[in-house]
Amino acid sequence: MIPLPPSFEKLLALLRTLPSVGPKMSERIAFHLLRLPEDQIREFISAVQETYRTVRPCSICGYWDDDSPCRICGDDSRDKSVLCVVEGSQDIQAIGRVRKFNGLFHVLGGILSPLDGVGPQDLEIDSLLRRLENEPIGEVILALNPDMEGETTCQYIAKRIQALSQRIKITRPAQGLPVGGELEYMDELTLTRALEGRRDVS
Amino acid sequence: MIPLPPSFEKLLALLRTLPSVGPKMSERIAFHLLRLPEDQIREFISAVQETYRTVRPCSICGYWDDDSPCRICGDDSRDKSVLCVVEGSQDIQAIGRVRKFNGLFHVLGGILSPLDGVGPQDLEIDSLLRRLENEPIGEVILALNPDMEGETTCQYIAKRIQALSQRIKITRPAQGLPVGGELEYMDELTLTRALEGRRDVS
Repeated sequence: MIPLPPSFEKLLALLRTLPSVGPKMSERIAFHLLRLPEDQIREFISAVQETYRTVRPCSICGYWDDDSPCRICGDDSRDKSVLCVVEGSQDIQAIGRVRKFNGLFHVLGGILSPLDGVGPQDLEIDSLLRRLENEPIGEVILALNPDMEGETTCQYIAKRIQALSQRIKITRPAQGLPVGGELEYMDELTLTRALEGRRDVS
Repeated sequence: MIPLPPSFEKLLALLRTLPSVGPKMSERIAFHLLRLPEDQIREFISAVQETYRTVRPCSICGYWDDDSPCRICGDDSRDKSVLCVVEGSQDIQAIGRVRKFNGLFHVLGGILSPLDGVGPQDLEIDSLLRRLENEPIGEVILALNPDMEGETTCQYIAKRIQALSQRIKITRPAQGLPVGGELEYMDELTLTRALEGRRDVS
């Protein structure tokens, strides 16, 4: 091993704490940063500082924005009768790319996971129920990941909503074959869901 | 599309300029940074600033260190008769993990690539030749990537060294099957090289 300068080692260690950044990639990013001209490294640092200072979760829905209520909650052109519940703010970006959806959002801030010690009190479930009491929401779409933990969390939230009101429609995105996927490589559970949810060819 | 706050958009755009960071990953990194406690974000920024301020390429070999000559060139226990030429500082880390190599290094700072406008004058080739004139180097290992551009660069440098001195041995790392690789998945060129370079079973 050839030792690196201590400041560089520390930077690498910090970069490795970023999501999906391993040892190789931390080296590549660090060398990239070191090679940047001084004005660009300053721009980088001030972008991090500026975003960290100004961007906060919306007090209503949890979307990260520089205004609270955020630009989604404050947008009068959106359909305020449909609320889409997601795990994190990133998911709002994904669903926001779907033009057909024009409702509101609610960020849970995680997913129920007893093994990781994440219980209902750690998620924005109480605030969700308060919204359902106070806002004219007719449908809640539970858009959580289609895995075991997403399933459990959906069922838990659905029960809490049903206990609150029988009039609110609770839905989930369809599960089935992803567009462009190859049937022969699909796992059994996906195929099961795709067959269970089969629809008439119109 | 749901618009992001401008400072956040700018941070994402800057993160996407990092090597191997695409749109999805830039979002994940940005959200990760936003969620860090304030002391950790400060630690992050000061690590970047400190490394950027103190770490520089060594004036002799080009290795990035906080001292120049660097800790490799300044290490009297190393074998100063063998010089390993690499494309970038990252490669020194990789070769440094191989215990058998205890010589010196020389960073080219790139690879010949006429299509990208990278010619010999853009690389540390003149400084390499000066080192060969002034230092007691008996062997140069050209440890460039085993691809077309690495090949071309090796041949160019070998010619320049031969023009300077016939006494310097010029070598390259062996090409062949990677350890743990599966023969049936190897490309034709790798197999060709592996067969050409076959060795007696001792």
